[in-house]
Amino acid sequence: MGEKRNVIYAQSGGVTTVINTSACGVIETVREHLDRFGKIYAGLHGIIGILQEELIDVDQESDEAIAGLRYTPGGAFGSCRYKLKSLEESRREYERLIEVFDAYDIGYFFYNGGGDSADTCYKVAQLAEKLGYPIQAIHVPKTMDNDLPITDCSPGFGSAAKYVAVSTREVHYDVASTFTTSTRVFILEVMGRHAGWTAAAAGLASTPEDPIPLLILFPEIPFEEDRFLAKVDEKVREAGYCIVVASEGIRKPDGSLVSEMGTRDAFGHAQLGGVAPRLAEIVRGRLGYKFHFAVSDYLLRAARHLSSKVDVEQAYAVGQAAVEFALQGKNAVMPAIRRLSDNPYRWEIVEAPLSEVANVEKKMPRTFISEDGFGITEACRRYMQPLIEGEDFPPFERGLPRYTRLKRVMVEKRLPEFKVV
Amino acid sequence: MGEKRNVIYAQSGGVTTVINTSACGVIETVREHLDRFGKIYAGLHGIIGILQEELIDVDQESDEAIAGLRYTPGGAFGSCRYKLKSLEESRREYERLIEVFDAYDIGYFFYNGGGDSADTCYKVAQLAEKLGYPIQAIHVPKTMDNDLPITDCSPGFGSAAKYVAVSTREVHYDVASTFTTSTRVFILEVMGRHAGWTAAAAGLASTPEDPIPLLILFPEIPFEEDRFLAKVDEKVREAGYCIVVASEGIRKPDGSLVSEMGTRDAFGHAQLGGVAPRLAEIVRGRLGYKFHFAVSDYLLRAARHLSSKVDVEQAYAVGQAAVEFALQGKNAVMPAIRRLSDNPYRWEIVEAPLSEVANVEKKMPRTFISEDGFGITEACRRYMQPLIEGEDFPPFERGLPRYTRLKRVMVEKRLPEFKVV
Repeated sequence: MGEKRNVIYAQSGGVTTVINTSACGVIETVREHLDRFGKIYAGLHGIIGILQEELIDVDQESDEAIAGLRYTPGGAFGSCRYKLKSLEESRREYERLIEVFDAYDIGYFFYNGGGDSADTCYKVAQLAEKLGYPIQAIHVPKTMDNDLPITDCSPGFGSAAKYVAVSTREVHYDVASTFTTSTRVFILEVMGRHAGWTAAAAGLASTPEDPIPLLILFPEIPFEEDRFLAKVDEKVREAGYCIVVASEGIRKPDGSLVSEMGTRDAFGHAQLGGVAPRLAEIVRGRLGYKFHFAVSDYLLRAARHLSSKVDVEQAYAVGQAAVEFALQGKNAVMPAIRRLSDNPYRWEIVEAPLSEVANVEKKMPRTFISEDGFGITEACRRYMQPLIEGEDFPPFERGLPRYTRLKRVMVEKRLPEFKVV
Repeated sequence: MGEKRNVIYAQSGGVTTVINTSACGVIETVREHLDRFGKIYAGLHGIIGILQEELIDVDQESDEAIAGLRYTPGGAFGSCRYKLKSLEESRREYERLIEVFDAYDIGYFFYNGGGDSADTCYKVAQLAEKLGYPIQAIHVPKTMDNDLPITDCSPGFGSAAKYVAVSTREVHYDVASTFTTSTRVFILEVMGRHAGWTAAAAGLASTPEDPIPLLILFPEIPFEEDRFLAKVDEKVREAGYCIVVASEGIRKPDGSLVSEMGTRDAFGHAQLGGVAPRLAEIVRGRLGYKFHFAVSDYLLRAARHLSSKVDVEQAYAVGQAAVEFALQGKNAVMPAIRRLSDNPYRWEIVEAPLSEVANVEKKMPRTFISEDGFGITEACRRYMQPLIEGEDFPPFERGLPRYTRLKRVMVEKRLPEFKVV
C-alpha cells in the first residue's frame, strides 16, 4: 500500500438534476489535494461497476469536463438500483469488494445516493472492522424525494420542488385563460414515492398576489374520492377551474394505491405512476368537467435547465465536504445540511453518522399539510421556499443546453470475472 | 364616428407561451400611434367577450404591465374556443358584433389565434362588404401546432419545439444513467393534434456529438404495432435503452386513434391524450421491458421559462406588423413570416390574404420524416433548428417566474344582454 491511497466514487439510485454537481464537488476537491490522494476511479453504474470491476479512470477526464458536471443532469458515471445484503447473506460480494478495492489500493469510497445507498455505504464502512480492510466510506446525500434523515433537506429536492412550483404556476396561467370554453380541471402528477414533499412544492406557486385554485393530493392523506370530488367541484364553482397536483403515491383509505383502483389496464403495478389519468377519469365520470392531465415523471428529475441555485450550491457543498471529512480521517459519515435561519436563508454542513441515516425515512410532518389535507401550511412554506430560490441555467448552444459527456475511459480489468447483473 | 377610431384585440384558441408577446406587440404599437388610434379594448375570452360585451379597458393597464406581457404565458385577456358560423347560419351573431363595434366605435379588430380564428377574423373582415359596417380586421397568427399556411412557421411553435427538444435531451441523460437496472423504454407524449411538427422537434435533441436512441411517432405515419415493437427492441439491444417521443395524434392503419385502441378505460375519447400510457402497456406486455412515461400536455405550451428567443421575437413582430398593416389601411390580412435563409437564419414579415389562410391546414411534408418513419430528415432539421434558438428567460423572483397579471378593468355595459355561453 502506497502512502497516497486511491479514491473511488460511484452514483446510486434514481438520478436528480444535481447528482453530477456533487460528483463535481467530490472530484474537484480531491484534485485540490493530490498530495493526499492518489488516483480517482468511478464505478460504472454504481456499486455494480465496482463489483464487476467496471471502473472508469476519472484521471482521464479534463478539468473542463469535470467542471461541466456541475450543470449536467443524469448520472454521468451511470447509476444503479442495487442494495448490498448483509454480510451474512452475501459474504461473497463483500469479499469481492475487498478484492477490487485491494487490487486498486482504494482507501476512500464516496457513495452518492439516497437511503438505500446510505445503507450500502454504511456496510462498506464496516469492512475495516468486520473484514480487516482499511477504508473510509463517506456517503454523499442525494434524493429528490427529500426523505433522508438528519439533513435539513436532500440535495436534488430543491430543484424538483422548483420544477413542480414553476410548472404549477405556468399551467395555471394556461388554464386560467381558456377555462370558459375548455379545460375546467387540470391534473399534474408528480413523482416523490411515498412522501408528499415534491407535491407540496406546488403550494409555493400560489401566493396572495397570484393565487391558484389548487388542490394538492399527498400520500400522507388517505384519498377519499367523495371528499376530493366535492373539493374539485367547490373550486370550479368558485374560480371556474381547478388545478390538482397529485403525488404518484396517493393511497385509498384501505392503503391500496389509487392508481390501482379498479382499472383493468392499471399501469405501474408495483411501479408507481398513472395516478393522473385515473383521477381524470374519476372527475370526468362523476363531475363531467372537461379535463386535461400531465404526468411529469422523469422530466421532473431531469430538468436541469430549471434547477434551483440553492440546490446546486448544496449539492456541490456536500461533495466537497465528503472529501474534507475523508481528509480528517472520518469513516461511516455523511455530510448533512443544517439550517441556521429561514429568512435570510442560511445553512452549514455538519456531520451525520451513517448508523443514523441508513434505512431511516424522513416523513413529511403532518404540520406541513393544511387541516383539510389539500394544501400546505405556513410552516411548510417557510421550510420549502428557500430551497427553490435562485436560478442556475446551464450554458445553451444552438437552442439546447450544452451538457457534458465524459470520455469514460475504462480501466483494463485485472481480476477474474464476477457477474452481478 | 370620430376621426380616430378605436381598437379591439382578442385572443383565441389554445394558448401558447408567446401569444401574450403578440398582444404586447399589438398594444405597444398602437400606443405609439395614438395620433391615429383611439381607445384600446380587449374582448374577455376572445370573440365571446365581444359578443357578450365583456370588454376590458386596456387603457387602464400601465405601460409596465403591457411590457410584462412579453414574457407571460397563457392568454392574459382570456381565450376561447368558439368559431363564428356563416352569415347565413348565424346572422344574429353578426348583427350583434356590429352593435358592439358600433357602440364602441371600433374601427380595427385584431384577432390573435390559429386556423379556426383566422376563419372568424376573415368573416369579421367581410362585415364591411356584406353588412356595411366599416372595419379593418387583421389576424395575428398563433399556434403551437405550426399548421397555419403561407407563414413559414407559426408563432408559438418554436417554443413548443424547444420544450420538446430540451425535454428529450434531458430525459435522455436520465435514462442513459440508470437503464442497466431500471427503465429501458421511456415514452414522452407531446401535443400537436394531427400534425407531427411538435414531435419532430425531439429529433433536434439527437446530434452526432450527442446521439440518442430515439424513435419518433408521427400522426402522419400509420402506427403499426409490430414494426414499432421491432424498432424498440432493436434500439434496446443496440443502446441498452430507447426514448420514444409520441405525438398524441398517432393513428392505426385503419385511421383510428392509438389511444382508443382496445382499452376499456380509454381517456380522452374525442379529446386527444393518453397515448403514452397505451404505448407503455404495449411495450410492457409484448417486450417485457421496464418502462416509464411522461405526458407533457399543457406543460409544453405553458413553459414560458423555456421559450425560444426567435419565437418571442417573431411573436412580437407579427403583433407589431398587424398594427402597421392597419395603419396602411389593410383589411382581411395576416402578417406572415417569410424565411430568407436557413443559416444564418434570416426572416421578414410579409402580408398573407386571409382568404388563403382561413381553413387551410399546413401538413408536415413527408420529406421531413425519415424513410423508416421514425425520425427526421436533414431537411426537417434545417427547417426547424433556427426556430428553437436563443433563450428569453422571464424575470424570476423568489425562485419563480414573475409573470404579469393585468388589472382587467371591465367596461360598463351599454347594450342589452346577449348570451353566447
